[in-house]
Parts: sequence; C-alpha cells; structure tokens
Amino acid sequence: MARQTTSLKRYFPIFDWLTSYNKDTLTSDLVAAVIVTIMLIPQSLAYALLAGLPAEVGLYASIAPLIIYAVFGTSRTLAVGPVAVASLMTAAAAGQLAAHGTPEYYTAAILLAFLSGLMLTVMGLLRLGFMANFLSHPVISGFITASGVIIAASQVRHILGIKGGGDNMIEIIHGTIENIGQANLPTIVIGVATTVFLFWVRSNLKPLLAKIGLTGQLGAALARTGPVAAVVATTLVTYGLGLDQAGVKVVGDIPTGLPGIAFPSFDLGLWSQIAVPALLISIVGYVETISVAQTLAAKRRQRIDPDQELIGLGTANLGSALSGGFPVTGGFSRSVVNFDAGAQTPAAGAFTAAGIALATLFLTPALFFLPKATLAATIIVAVLSLVDFSILKKTWSYSRVDFAAVFVTIVVTLAFGVEKGVSAGVLLSIAMFLYKTSRPHIAEVGLVPGTQHFRNIRRHDVKTHPSLLTIRIDESLYFANARYLEDYVIDRVVCDQPIKHVVLMCSAVNEIDMSALESLETINTRLSEMGIKLHLSEVKGPVMDRLERSHFLHELTGQVFLAQYDSIRALLPDADKARVA
Amino acid sequence: MARQTTSLKRYFPIFDWLTSYNKDTLTSDLVAAVIVTIMLIPQSLAYALLAGLPAEVGLYASIAPLIIYAVFGTSRTLAVGPVAVASLMTAAAAGQLAAHGTPEYYTAAILLAFLSGLMLTVMGLLRLGFMANFLSHPVISGFITASGVIIAASQVRHILGIKGGGDNMIEIIHGTIENIGQANLPTIVIGVATTVFLFWVRSNLKPLLAKIGLTGQLGAALARTGPVAAVVATTLVTYGLGLDQAGVKVVGDIPTGLPGIAFPSFDLGLWSQIAVPALLISIVGYVETISVAQTLAAKRRQRIDPDQELIGLGTANLGSALSGGFPVTGGFSRSVVNFDAGAQTPAAGAFTAAGIALATLFLTPALFFLPKATLAATIIVAVLSLVDFSILKKTWSYSRVDFAAVFVTIVVTLAFGVEKGVSAGVLLSIAMFLYKTSRPHIAEVGLVPGTQHFRNIRRHDVKTHPSLLTIRIDESLYFANARYLEDYVIDRVVCDQPIKHVVLMCSAVNEIDMSALESLETINTRLSEMGIKLHLSEVKGPVMDRLERSHFLHELTGQVFLAQYDSIRALLPDADKARVA
Repeated sequence: MARQTTSLKRYFPIFDWLTSYNKDTLTSDLVAAVIVTIMLIPQSLAYALLAGLPAEVGLYASIAPLIIYAVFGTSRTLAVGPVAVASLMTAAAAGQLAAHGTPEYYTAAILLAFLSGLMLTVMGLLRLGFMANFLSHPVISGFITASGVIIAASQVRHILGIKGGGDNMIEIIHGTIENIGQANLPTIVIGVATTVFLFWVRSNLKPLLAKIGLTGQLGAALARTGPVAAVVATTLVTYGLGLDQAGVKVVGDIPTGLPGIAFPSFDLGLWSQIAVPALLISIVGYVETISVAQTLAAKRRQRIDPDQELIGLGTANLGSALSGGFPVTGGFSRSVVNFDAGAQTPAAGAFTAAGIALATLFLTPALFFLPKATLAATIIVAVLSLVDFSILKKTWSYSRVDFAAVFVTIVVTLAFGVEKGVSAGVLLSIAMFLYKTSRPHIAEVGLVPGTQHFRNIRRHDVKTHPSLLTIRIDESLYFANARYLEDYVIDRVVCDQPIKHVVLMCSAVNEIDMSALESLETINTRLSEMGIKLHLSEVKGPVMDRLERSHFLHELTGQVFLAQYDSIRALLPDADKARVA
Repeated sequence: MARQTTSLKRYFPIFDWLTSYNKDTLTSDLVAAVIVTIMLIPQSLAYALLAGLPAEVGLYASIAPLIIYAVFGTSRTLAVGPVAVASLMTAAAAGQLAAHGTPEYYTAAILLAFLSGLMLTVMGLLRLGFMANFLSHPVISGFITASGVIIAASQVRHILGIKGGGDNMIEIIHGTIENIGQANLPTIVIGVATTVFLFWVRSNLKPLLAKIGLTGQLGAALARTGPVAAVVATTLVTYGLGLDQAGVKVVGDIPTGLPGIAFPSFDLGLWSQIAVPALLISIVGYVETISVAQTLAAKRRQRIDPDQELIGLGTANLGSALSGGFPVTGGFSRSVVNFDAGAQTPAAGAFTAAGIALATLFLTPALFFLPKATLAATIIVAVLSLVDFSILKKTWSYSRVDFAAVFVTIVVTLAFGVEKGVSAGVLLSIAMFLYKTSRPHIAEVGLVPGTQHFRNIRRHDVKTHPSLLTIRIDESLYFANARYLEDYVIDRVVCDQPIKHVVLMCSAVNEIDMSALESLETINTRLSEMGIKLHLSEVKGPVMDRLERSHFLHELTGQVFLAQYDSIRALLPDADKARVA
C-alpha cells in the first residue's frame, strides 16, 4: 500500500503538493502567474513567428503543456512553453520538409512536438535520462550561443521589413543582402525603436523603479512589462497611422477561441524523416529543462527526479501537439521570473495557462495591428542574452579538448545549422573522450625514500632497482586501451634487458574488461617467454572479484600484492633490499 | 644524420635486416619459403574462389604484396596474402555492387584492395593505429567465429556441385535448400573424400610422420602437403575419368604469366559506395595482422611498430590492387608455418612470392582439371579452425557486457552478414563502455578504526560522523557522468539534514573535464546555498594542475586536503575528533 502511494507520487508528482495546498500558496502562485502571463503573451507570439508558424500556435503551446506539466513535472517552479532555441530547431526541421506557411509545414511542426513528446516520455519510463549527459556542458554552451546568433540574425529581416529566410548564417546573410533593396522605412523605425527601448528597459528600468521606491514584487512585475508596453505602443501607432498600408507587416487575423484537438499525422514516411530532428529537440530541450529545474530546486532544497522530468516534459509536448502547438521546453528566463515572483507550486503554471486561455478568447482581435518588427525586436533582445562567447576563452585555458568541442559546435552550427551543429558537437566529444581513454596515462613509479609510497620517477626523486619495473596505470583497462598497455610493456622490456619482474600497480584501475584481461594474459605469456615474471599490486575489490572468475590468476607467473610496498620486499634480491626498500 | 637514418629505418624497415643478411639467414628463409609456397598455392586459389574471383587473382595477390611487405613491414615472419575472412568480406562488398563473375565485380574487388591499402597507409602516416583498438577482443573473436561458420556454409554448395550464394546464413541456407535437387554425385564424392582426408591429415599425419622418424623441418613440411596432395590427386582423377564431363565443376583455364599492371577505377561514385566496406576490411585485416605479428615477434623478443605495420599492410594492399589482386592481410596459419619453418627475415616472403610467380608461369595449365569441390574442401577444413564458440562461455562467466558484445556480433554477422556484424559489435561495445562510465561507481567511505585508511561503508565496518559525508568516485569525471555525480551528491544531502561538510575523495579520478568542472561548481554553489561546505581530497597532480587554471579553487567553500585523513582531523568538532578519528 505504501509502495503503491510512492509509485503513484513518483509518476504523478502533483499529489506531492496538492494535498497541502492552501490559501497562502494560492496567493503566491496567482501573483507569479499574472507576472509570467504578461511576459508570456508577447513571447509566445514571437516564438511562433520564429518557428515560422501562425501567431496563435504560440498561444496554443502555452496552455495545455503548462497544465500537463503541473500534473507530471517534479519541479515546483519550472515554466514550460515555447522557447527560442526549440523554436529555431522547429523551423530548421519543418523547413526541410515543407515551405513556410503551408499546411504541411504546420503538420510537420505538430508532429515534431508529438514525436519529441513520445520519445521523452518513453525515455522517462525506461529511465534513459542519462542519454542527455552525452551533450556536454561546453557543447551545449557553444550550441546555445551559436543558436542565439542565428536567431538574432534571422530576425533582422523583420526589422528591415524584407523577405528572406534560412537556418544558418550563410543562408541568412545571403538572403538579407539579396533583399535589402526592399527595406521599408516605417518598419525599420518601429523595429529599431522597439529594440532600443527593450535594451533600455532590460538594463535601466529596474534600477529606476528602485530609485522611486518601487521594489519587491511590484517593481519586479513592472520591470517585466517592457515587451507588453512595446506591443501596446507599436500596435496603437500602427493602427493610428495606418502603417499596415505603408508596408509595415502586421500579425493580422488571429483566430479567437481555445485550440481544438489536433491529431498528429501518422504518415510513417514523415515520421522517419522527422525522427532525428525530434530526438535532437528532445535532448536539447531536456538538458535545458533539467538544468533550470535543478538550479531553482537547489535554492529551496527541493528534489528533482530527472527521469520523471522526462515524463513531465514529454507529456507536456504530447499535450502541445494534441492541441495544435509546437515543441515546448522549460525556459530559463520565464522560470527565473516565476521563481522570483514567488511561485510555490506548479499550480502557478496552470494559472498562467488560464491567463493565456483568456487571451486567446478575448485579446486576439486587439493584436491585428501588432507589427512583426515588434515581435522580432523582443526576440533579438531575449536571445542576445543567450550569446556568450566567453566559453571559448574559458575552455581554451582549461582544456584544449573541451575548446575543440565548443569551437567545432559553434562553427558547424553557424555554418550548417542547428542539427548538424549539435550532432557534430556530441560526436566529437565522444570521439575525443574515447581517444583520451585509449591512450591512458601510464607512469613508471619508484619508492619515495623513507616511506611506503610510490611516485612517478619523472616527477619525483625515487628509488628503483634495475631488475624491477613498476608501472602504474591511471585508467580503467578496456578494449580501446588494452593493446596500448601491451605495446607499452613489451616495448619497455625489449629495450631494457636486466628486467626480471614487471609489477602493474592497479590502484586507479576501476575495471578490467575481457579485452584487457586477454591483453594481460598476452603480456603474461610474452613476458614469460622472455623469462620475466608479471605481478599485480593494489587491485581493487570488485576488479579482483572478477579476475577470480577467470583463469588469469592461475596462469599469472608472478603474484598479486595487496600493497605495492610488499612487492619490492618480496621481489628484490636480499642484498639489494636494504638499499632500495 | 643519425636521425635521418632512424627515420629511413622507421619507414623502410628492410634496412634493419638487409645489411646483416648472410648465407645462414638465406638458407633458413629459402626453406621456409618452399614450405609456405606449397601451402599457399591451393590456398590462394581457394580464397579467390571464396571471394567470387577467377582463380588466378589469388595467385596475383600472393606475389607483389609479399615483396612490398618485405620492404615496409616490421614483422620478420608475418606471411601476408589472401586470407579467409578478408576474402569473405570482399565477396560481401563486391557482391553488393555487381553480379559474381562480371568485370564490374572484379573491378570492385581491385578497388577494395586499393582503397583499403590507401586507408591503411594514410592511417599509418598519421599514426592512427589506435583506431583498430575499438574492435574489442570479444567482438573480433565473435566476428571471426561467425565468419568461419558463414564461409564453411558457403562452400557446401561447391561440395554438392549446386548453384547458390549469399553473404549471410539465411541467404546461404535458403540458396542451398532451393538448389539441392541439382546435386552432382561425382562432385559430392570428391568433395567429401577431400574433406575427410584433410581432416585426417590435420589431426593424424604429423604424429604418424613422427612415429616413422620424420620430425623437424622435413616432417613439418610433409605435414603441410595435405592440401597439395589433395589437389594433385583429385585433378588427376578428374582428368583421368573425364569427370568434368560428368558435371564436376573444374577451375578451368587459368591465364599463364605474371600479372600486368591494373589501374584501379577512379569512379568517385564507386569509391563512396565502397569506402565503408574498405574501412571495415582494413581494420579487421589490420587487427588480425598486428596480433599475429606481435605474437610471433614476442617469441623472439623482437619489436613490432604498430603504426609502421599499417604502412606495411597498406602498401601491400596497394601493390595487390595495382597487380590485379584483391585485399590481403597477414594470415595466422601461414605466418605460424613460416615462423616454425625457420624464416628469419621478410626475405622469406619475397622468396615465397618468387615461388608463386613461377607457379603462374608454369603450373597453371596443370590446374585446368582441379575440381572446385577440392578447393571448397580446403577452405572448409581451414576455416573450421577459426570457429570457436567458447568465447561465449568465457565472456558469460567473466562479464555480461562483454558477453552481450560477442553475442550480438555473432548473431548479427550470421543473420545479416559481415559488415553489419562487425559494425554492430563495435558500436555496441562503445555504447556499453560509455554507458558504464556514465554511471560510475561511487562509494560512501568511512575510517577503518585504528588506521588512516578509508573504505566503503557498505563493505567494511568503519567510523563515520553525521556532519561529514565522504564520497569516493571510482572514475574520471567527464561530461557523461558529471550530472550523475551532481544528482548523487544533491540527492544525498537533501535526504540527510545534519550534513555540514561533503568531501569528494578523488584518488581514482584521472581527469576532470570542463563539464565536470562546471558540475563541481554547481555542486559547490548548491551545497553552499544549503549551508554545506564542499571539500576535495587526494586530488592527483595533473588534475590539480588543471584545476588551478580555473576559478574553481577560489570559489570552493571548503578546502583541498592532501590526504583524506587530514579532512576529518580538520572538519570534525573537537569533541568528536577523539571518538571518530
């Protein structure tokens, strides 16, 4: 019975907090929901635009997913919904299958959300969250920075009021230059003014509000109203001056009303074409979600279940697809606002969803004259905060291997688009990791005089004996480095004839797989043919357990010593013992 | 000057032995060459048959490659030439591009040798020999066993005298059953008799020769004449009884004379289709070559340069392609015979090449009536020695992960052919290795009473203190396991409120990459927000060097202890120090 409750709470984290819900948490959640709703309305429209979809799709993706996440998610404060990077990835994937603006394009976007939701949910049920770990921190940083640059660049055409497109910098720059002749002055004025205004709001409004005594939640809420103010102002100006007749592109008709149920396409050809992009969106979205969720949870000493988060995000995406939305993830900036505004439970998300639902019912006619340039400006200001090239400098000074991963990710993303960029980063990181482990650090060690410690003969002044070669291997032994050890040991003894004993010091060997075992057997046999004995020392418990299940210990010409020091006591000629040990 | 000589000797190992060549080595090499030539004539014909190529191609592949390897190879006794597994892989790759027996098929086989030679040579010049290490011992064992089964099964049709084909067991069994009605009795008699005879020779001739006093080199040479005797006897019988008219398929016309120069195709479409099979043949061939070479070299305490071996095998394959041959590798059985027969230098290989050249000049007319069933029998007897399913049992008892790799390799190879089999094995091994390292062994440790040693609290009776959590990580920290550590530490402290200090014991951490560094920073920040300090202990020199290049050590809330024991002396409340430490 207790177990059933645990399992119920595991898969339905809502029961964790719903039972203790009270008036105080309700008030906190409502306040946070109002602030997030104000922030989300322009963002959801803008990210739909970025994804190449009708504006209302952004609103649809901000209703059902938030309610579903409140049921299945383990984070108390995560705000799911449309975000910039996933929107760009949606545009890149859907754009490969259909032209912008066509019904097929919209179908592809819905299917992306559906497949990505399915993948995440299945990964959660199978507890495959660890797969996301192969997206290393430097790769994700480089990827997000490069995506931010692409997104900002892709919006320049809306600010200029020209046609264009493209999913990578080469296409975007080419398209912008080609069409620059059609630039529309009123659009540029609106776009540039909004951009400047939003940058000013971002850096100066909060301190200003503080100066006039508006701090705390009200100040924070007002500081977030910049985009909404820009939306209202530019819509009114466009309406008042009839700028839509002067070439300013506006959002236009947005259907009023809640989304209906959308059934995703079951065209298997389309599924197979969209599977890889859906997987990439899933993993990138999940990594972003889980890191935001964990950062916020830690601040309040709360727990996040990474596998249940997969289910939370997965079902949210399924919900988005079934209500005509596109892929959603847990966004960083909205989640921080939600947290700072005092959200206590995922109910805040559900209330936000209610706010967006009201907007779809009553607000959409008012958005007819909203210029696309205004939305582009909000996107540019939002994504430029994602751009951070300092990761290049940081990795350069810390590790060239990590630098290479970031550099390649950034360059490939900028030049060839998001899918190739993130794939290149992941594959390169794995390849470099495998390369590193395939050439492990191996040190020849000797005794530190007056102690029982052994250290690298190249770094320390230690005692050795010509008949005894002691090698410390600083890596687990597995197939990729087994032969390396073989070569190292055989080369070493072929060049050095007086050696009679080789001791492998295994203190840092956490595993010996079958290939490495066979290499040890080979080393043992070859050394034995040269009249040299092989010994092991400081073998870890679990490794020793495994070796005992093989024949190796019977065939070993030498001994297994518990401590390296024991080996020199046992192996050196009596005459030299006093001198060396 | 000395350096130039070294470099010359590195890339042209022939200068290592040619200068000290004398009458004794000449005699030894000549004797070995005679024995290997006798063995190689039927084998080269048979493996050409297996590869689906005209018989003379086997002879061509046994001339130029042997001479070239003598110049560039570092093994003194390796016998390169056509071998069973590479011939099967050639048949599988060429069969995907053209029908057996067509000129396009032969073109593809030549191009395979050329591309594979080019790849190996380039890998050698770039010192990329380590790439072969990703073919783990269990995968290669499983692959060779499965290949042996496929090869033997594929020859059954020649013994029955029926049509058929296929590169995997499903196709082969299907083809054999479909055509079994056309079985030819004289062919079956020859095939079965030869097979039985060769098995008898293999197990009984050597002891018999020893009994009548024929031991040593003469006995060894005679023991290897079984296949030649079978070839002579069945050719004479077929000729004498006119069995070729009774449906026994014979080798037929073999062009007399040395091979001319063949120019490989430069059709880029063909190159791209054949690149992956060529890479697989290269790697499988190289792994076989290097392990035979090293095994034999170790017996005489000689050195093999793995990167130069790539060049040796690569140029041998280029030579094979340019003289109309197909892919060659260093074969196990012929190399052992060469070694046992007393070969001292690679000149023995060059002499063998001369022997085969003489055969192409004078022997080919005599081979007209050689039944294909005889060659099939020599193949079956040769490859069944490769089949060894004991690797399944061995890996099962040693490690289930290795077992899975072998099992999948065998099953996929048998069911889908050699290319898919070896690819599946390699990818699965890498995936399982990455999975393992992504969930490292983490132990909570405590002090062994009366010592300064720390051990796993689950395995040993150790002392701990509620305010102090000490965790030993038994793996290098890198992107794939960084988040795992993060989750582990945060989960652990969230559930256990009295903890005030967390010490990470890093004695088995050989590397901390950028992702892991950021995870440590995150752990540090989150613990600090909970009022807990993070400390490190027993950090290795190279890891510490790197940490000092980052900001982490400045931000660390706690200390870095040289020894774990120092940490409890420093961190425990004075009142408890005496009790615990």
